[in-house]
Amino acid sequence: MEMKKKIVLAYSGGLDTSVILKWLTQKGFDVIAYVADVGQKDDFEKVREKALKTGASKVYVEDLREELVTDYIFPALRGNALYEGRYLLGTALARPLIAKRQVQIAEREGTNLLAHGATGKGNDQVRFEFAFYALHPDAVVISPWKDPEFLFEFKGRTDMLKYAEKFGIPVTASKSKPYSEDENIMHISHEAGILEDPDNSPPEEMFSHTLSPQKAPDVETIIEIEFKDGFPVSVVNLNDGTVKKKPLELFLYLNELAGKNGIGRVDMVENRFIGIKSRGVYETPGATILWAAHRDLEGIAMDKEVMYLRDMMIPKFSELIYNGFWFSPEMDFIMAAIEKSQEKIDGTVRLSLYKGNVQPIGRKSPTSLYNEDLSSMDIEGGFNAVDSLGFININAIRLKAHNLLLRNHDPYRWRKRRQ
Amino acid sequence: MEMKKKIVLAYSGGLDTSVILKWLTQKGFDVIAYVADVGQKDDFEKVREKALKTGASKVYVEDLREELVTDYIFPALRGNALYEGRYLLGTALARPLIAKRQVQIAEREGTNLLAHGATGKGNDQVRFEFAFYALHPDAVVISPWKDPEFLFEFKGRTDMLKYAEKFGIPVTASKSKPYSEDENIMHISHEAGILEDPDNSPPEEMFSHTLSPQKAPDVETIIEIEFKDGFPVSVVNLNDGTVKKKPLELFLYLNELAGKNGIGRVDMVENRFIGIKSRGVYETPGATILWAAHRDLEGIAMDKEVMYLRDMMIPKFSELIYNGFWFSPEMDFIMAAIEKSQEKIDGTVRLSLYKGNVQPIGRKSPTSLYNEDLSSMDIEGGFNAVDSLGFININAIRLKAHNLLLRNHDPYRWRKRRQ
Amino acid sequence: MEMKKKIVLAYSGGLDTSVILKWLTQKGFDVIAYVADVGQKDDFEKVREKALKTGASKVYVEDLREELVTDYIFPALRGNALYEGRYLLGTALARPLIAKRQVQIAEREGTNLLAHGATGKGNDQVRFEFAFYALHPDAVVISPWKDPEFLFEFKGRTDMLKYAEKFGIPVTASKSKPYSEDENIMHISHEAGILEDPDNSPPEEMFSHTLSPQKAPDVETIIEIEFKDGFPVSVVNLNDGTVKKKPLELFLYLNELAGKNGIGRVDMVENRFIGIKSRGVYETPGATILWAAHRDLEGIAMDKEVMYLRDMMIPKFSELIYNGFWFSPEMDFIMAAIEKSQEKIDGTVRLSLYKGNVQPIGRKSPTSLYNEDLSSMDIEGGFNAVDSLGFININAIRLKAHNLLLRNHDPYRWRKRRQ
Amino acid sequence: MEMKKKIVLAYSGGLDTSVILKWLTQKGFDVIAYVADVGQKDDFEKVREKALKTGASKVYVEDLREELVTDYIFPALRGNALYEGRYLLGTALARPLIAKRQVQIAEREGTNLLAHGATGKGNDQVRFEFAFYALHPDAVVISPWKDPEFLFEFKGRTDMLKYAEKFGIPVTASKSKPYSEDENIMHISHEAGILEDPDNSPPEEMFSHTLSPQKAPDVETIIEIEFKDGFPVSVVNLNDGTVKKKPLELFLYLNELAGKNGIGRVDMVENRFIGIKSRGVYETPGATILWAAHRDLEGIAMDKEVMYLRDMMIPKFSELIYNGFWFSPEMDFIMAAIEKSQEKIDGTVRLSLYKGNVQPIGRKSPTSLYNEDLSSMDIEGGFNAVDSLGFININAIRLKAHNLLLRNHDPYRWRKRRQ
Repeated sequence: MEMKKKIVLAYSGGLDTSVILKWLTQKGFDVIAYVADVGQKDDFEKVREKALKTGASKVYVEDLREELVTDYIFPALRGNALYEGRYLLGTALARPLIAKRQVQIAEREGTNLLAHGATGKGNDQVRFEFAFYALHPDAVVISPWKDPEFLFEFKGRTDMLKYAEKFGIPVTASKSKPYSEDENIMHISHEAGILEDPDNSPPEEMFSHTLSPQKAPDVETIIEIEFKDGFPVSVVNLNDGTVKKKPLELFLYLNELAGKNGIGRVDMVENRFIGIKSRGVYETPGATILWAAHRDLEGIAMDKEVMYLRDMMIPKFSELIYNGFWFSPEMDFIMAAIEKSQEKIDGTVRLSLYKGNVQPIGRKSPTSLYNEDLSSMDIEGGFNAVDSLGFININAIRLKAHNLLLRNHDPYRWRKRRQ
Repeated sequence: MEMKKKIVLAYSGGLDTSVILKWLTQKGFDVIAYVADVGQKDDFEKVREKALKTGASKVYVEDLREELVTDYIFPALRGNALYEGRYLLGTALARPLIAKRQVQIAEREGTNLLAHGATGKGNDQVRFEFAFYALHPDAVVISPWKDPEFLFEFKGRTDMLKYAEKFGIPVTASKSKPYSEDENIMHISHEAGILEDPDNSPPEEMFSHTLSPQKAPDVETIIEIEFKDGFPVSVVNLNDGTVKKKPLELFLYLNELAGKNGIGRVDMVENRFIGIKSRGVYETPGATILWAAHRDLEGIAMDKEVMYLRDMMIPKFSELIYNGFWFSPEMDFIMAAIEKSQEKIDGTVRLSLYKGNVQPIGRKSPTSLYNEDLSSMDIEGGFNAVDSLGFININAIRLKAHNLLLRNHDPYRWRKRRQ
Repeated sequence: MEMKKKIVLAYSGGLDTSVILKWLTQKGFDVIAYVADVGQKDDFEKVREKALKTGASKVYVEDLREELVTDYIFPALRGNALYEGRYLLGTALARPLIAKRQVQIAEREGTNLLAHGATGKGNDQVRFEFAFYALHPDAVVISPWKDPEFLFEFKGRTDMLKYAEKFGIPVTASKSKPYSEDENIMHISHEAGILEDPDNSPPEEMFSHTLSPQKAPDVETIIEIEFKDGFPVSVVNLNDGTVKKKPLELFLYLNELAGKNGIGRVDMVENRFIGIKSRGVYETPGATILWAAHRDLEGIAMDKEVMYLRDMMIPKFSELIYNGFWFSPEMDFIMAAIEKSQEKIDGTVRLSLYKGNVQPIGRKSPTSLYNEDLSSMDIEGGFNAVDSLGFININAIRLKAHNLLLRNHDPYRWRKRRQ
Repeated sequence: MEMKKKIVLAYSGGLDTSVILKWLTQKGFDVIAYVADVGQKDDFEKVREKALKTGASKVYVEDLREELVTDYIFPALRGNALYEGRYLLGTALARPLIAKRQVQIAEREGTNLLAHGATGKGNDQVRFEFAFYALHPDAVVISPWKDPEFLFEFKGRTDMLKYAEKFGIPVTASKSKPYSEDENIMHISHEAGILEDPDNSPPEEMFSHTLSPQKAPDVETIIEIEFKDGFPVSVVNLNDGTVKKKPLELFLYLNELAGKNGIGRVDMVENRFIGIKSRGVYETPGATILWAAHRDLEGIAMDKEVMYLRDMMIPKFSELIYNGFWFSPEMDFIMAAIEKSQEKIDGTVRLSLYKGNVQPIGRKSPTSLYNEDLSSMDIEGGFNAVDSLGFININAIRLKAHNLLLRNHDPYRWRKRRQ
């Protein structure tokens, strides 16, 4: 008798991956379900049970939250990652970690077959598959939502529900929300369904990780966040003296504070890797605070020219994360520069949290480049104003030359410039 | 008898420029005071009077507010200008306009002598002087705060007060604030004095263009802003039906709405052109709304790759404005690309204003690149999921090759990557 | 009787496109052959005849050489396009023009079906198809080399030769070269076959557009090229007085001069769009001279900061051309900036051509930004050396601050820096 | 009796620094002359003697050639540094090393006073002084050519000659060349004098590090250069079997080969940091070969996306070197990325040297990313052409959307695009 081929499937317990699990077993695979706890609110024992019932030969359930925070979320925030100026990349950061663990389990189980339930129109497929191929160049990926046979069988949700019924796969009512969600310790995203019309405002009942600014407390919360080499190392709540220092606890605590204070909601139309525009609504509570605090600290501790070069890289850095290139040579290239830029980004930022606002209101740094005497308008300290004369004269040489040229050779543009 | 040389001085009516005015007359200049109304709250007739009393032979008072809005503020916002990720460049945008008018008046008056009262440590000196030299390559600039003789005579505020007293220059009490301010239609900045310690939180009484989020109304204001080619062309207040369409009115109205709703405060440490770090607190009410609305509209109406290239330029674009290079060939270069990027950025963004928050909650565009059918997860419309298979496989070729190389030739990095 | 569907095929007369032509007719298409004369050495009447014999219902033969030179080659050179630092993009520039004409003919013929013979592993497929889709968003593209049925039938050259024999398609012996070529007025490329081993040196007999430096004349040729707004407007051969001014003649003449003097050969491994590395050998005679001359003129006529920004764009600009994005919004974006940068890039460059070398040896410009007095080390003209003191002091503020920080807080890095 | 203050002067033995040495002693300084052998052709014992005779209390003569090659030239070439597309930065690379040694000697001698003889119009002043200030934030720099008193005394060469005569400073005839030169192991530069007219061709007798292509041998020299992590580790002359492996020997040998074969001349107008354009003629023999070889090897061994990001950085990297920011935080930032990019850039490039030409003609790499099977047009190996279909379709989604928009909303641009 021939051995069945083992395949490691990223399994969430939801309808899609349950149908896929069953479908793969029917295709003759020995399915190993991989369940990653990345912070989504789930009963993982029930998910394990469901996987086994649905036909998995083995189930791995792992708590990846700490690794997600320290090795993915914090490094991204350290580089001020922000996709298209607004999205903090919550989903994009969790996928490569899950994929990495799948690869490791596949190797332990002696297979090179990997599967996931991401659709063919979305971004998660690339995040899974690029990570698979990067970490396991010989991987063979089964992606049912790009498989013509699977697509023929399952044209929509109705087909899946029928299939689930036929094979006794339990369907949870919670999945009947009129939009789809992805949740982890960093954020929850909402898209599709009623959100597909980008002019429809998101309904208040949709939000689950943040209170609305309207419902947030009437009293501001003042906190201090300390960074070392660009990584957060402590949070102090100045209202009540709470202190958190371990990465996971610190991050969970910021989520709690931000969520309560209505911080971290974003509603935007973004560009998927595949060139389709998509509307997403995000709640990213704690990371929104960290992003603001880190940027603020850089103001005092980062060299100006380094900041300009780094800022030019933020769009690319964010795009690489979004597009699934976490494990790529170009990411290594950018990351090397970012790491250098974060040496000695040390210090403490004080922030006010209030009804959706996260506002830095003070900062200090042992490695500050800020010099009160130099910057003071009253003190001469170390600065000779006459130097500025030379500085300006030298900088103006080029401007004069160019504009003399316009005056002499391009009267139209010269006139227009001076209108 | 020799004719006195005419000089055109940017005159504000404050202590510094009044002392400079007098000092220039004592140096034998015929001083023409140029007073620009860029939206600061001033009694310009009193300023005119004071200039004449202090020794000006002539005074020009001009309302530049509309030109400032249409030709400087809107073009900057169209390019999403934001210095070091936070500062909307309120002061930096007004200076080149004032300087341009000074140059025009100098030409009319038959002189090439220009003066300003900006200090030798700050940013405004470069904004004035680069604009002078660009628009008038033969300009001769008198900058007292970089003149050793002037600096010797005036070592601090006390010397200026004595000088003012001696020459009967009235000193207004309002200037006794423990920090310095620059105000125009776009913003008010606060710096120096008690703000010099970057860990001192700004006192609430400092703010004048915005209410605090705490004092803002408990009810959100919903507005719609329409853009045409990236320029705002109308604002509608959906709460009460108010409509504004003329640039100046529209901008003033947004200032009013934003100020009332506690929107537009920023507290940061920034880098001055001359390499000194400086702490600034800004209130930029209306422009904060416009920035958010414009960015949101681009989400739906701007091509993805154009957005990436443009986003990479934002730091440079903002730096050029900040550093006073508004009239420079490199600004022309970037502006040409930005203008191209804004063709057909048309549409309407709906925003919620509430206690410091400005949140886009819906948008529509006649030139939208968003395709509901394409983006929908349920509809197949125009998309073949199998295409994604090829797309991913092709993109993965390079990743596989690189990681095979690591596996074969760099076992340390390979192991580390997969930990 | 049903009408056959018309399809416009880019037809070269070679084996591949002849087989495709016939195969398309067998599939039931009414094939219109489009033959573009982009400067390749061909007998176009024979090509026309062969198309008709092979089954085309109609043949268009067009001389696109002038348009190629003025609207594609010159604009690319104006932006200093150079792929991966070496390849002048000869093939990549011709494809979008051919595709554009195919689209226009398809519209005239009342069809939206377009076909080409580029392979599924190469770069030309993207150049054809992106241009098709951009200029005709409803285009339907038939690309046999990506069609499973065609690929099944034609596994290699042998299958094609058999098919040609069977259907009486004449096969020219010239195609038996042990590598493949693409030729147009700008260049000829050589790849594949014996060149696939990147360590194999290209055989001398392969080269057809250039003499080897060894065989080039022993006497240098001195020429002058004049540019207006970055476009070449005249070439003068100072050896013999020949003058060429019309774009096509000028370009052909530079090809002649460069080819004779052994100029324009490149041998490199490059990256195809699809992520595969490929070895290419190129001969690009005239454009190599123009590139060098234009860059040299910019040295004297282009503002420094504009040059830096533009230079940063060259890799992206070149990549877009290479990858087939000629008709794309991001190309429009970059091109707008490039066009601005080329205003007043006027002047004349003198060059020595000698055995492979193209060396600028003098240049002058009516719109020069070079100022002999300013640059002179002997003359004080318009420059106050003391200004440099201030310039340096100001620039050094930031360096001192950063290195004081290292000294105080990062003794390891500080020591290492000063070793 | 008061102690004289020690000052460390970069001393060349030429007229300028000799006059400065004497002038400093007259000002009351105890002058320590620092003589760096960076490869210039000089009799260093005579220079030492002259320094002492001219008044130096102490002279340091050091051979910095090896350090210059390994720690400055090779790292710059590894990052493909090339200023304004042509200048290999020979002078700019030597200055920070000399300055660093001066700082070290100043510390040993217990002083913070440093001096150099670079002029106030040139680039070398910034390279010296930024390095001084970076490595010794408390440095006090004496720069006579920016000192009003010195400038008043020495208005030109005549004044210096008189002064030299008066104080018995010997003047060498060699300095009477009608242009000025800077020489080191990497290059010799020629500027000023008869070269100030950018239209004057450089006279053949000016060149000293390279033969003209005309005088170079009629036989090509074939060499192989091996790199490890982007650093050259061996050169083999395939004509005669010579092998060089030690960095300094290898570099000197490449200088010899290139010089003999007429390789490395550049004639250009460049932009000085201070905004003045300047004409420079350079001979950079060996580095020209290394640059070409290294770039070629990257073609086969560097990831495509890394190359694009790195290529975008070359202008900034080169500008930083040129402007004297070798010891700066932004250089550290860029260098970290460059170093990452060079890991596993291993392999051997074969080059033909012939009468000014340096042409890669073959390359191989143990860490090659080139895959002959994949790139082959004949072999299917690991590539499914149908994947390209999906790849193109996905990439075209965005292009279609944008052009549909133009068609519907911008008929003028749409028509123009398709003309």
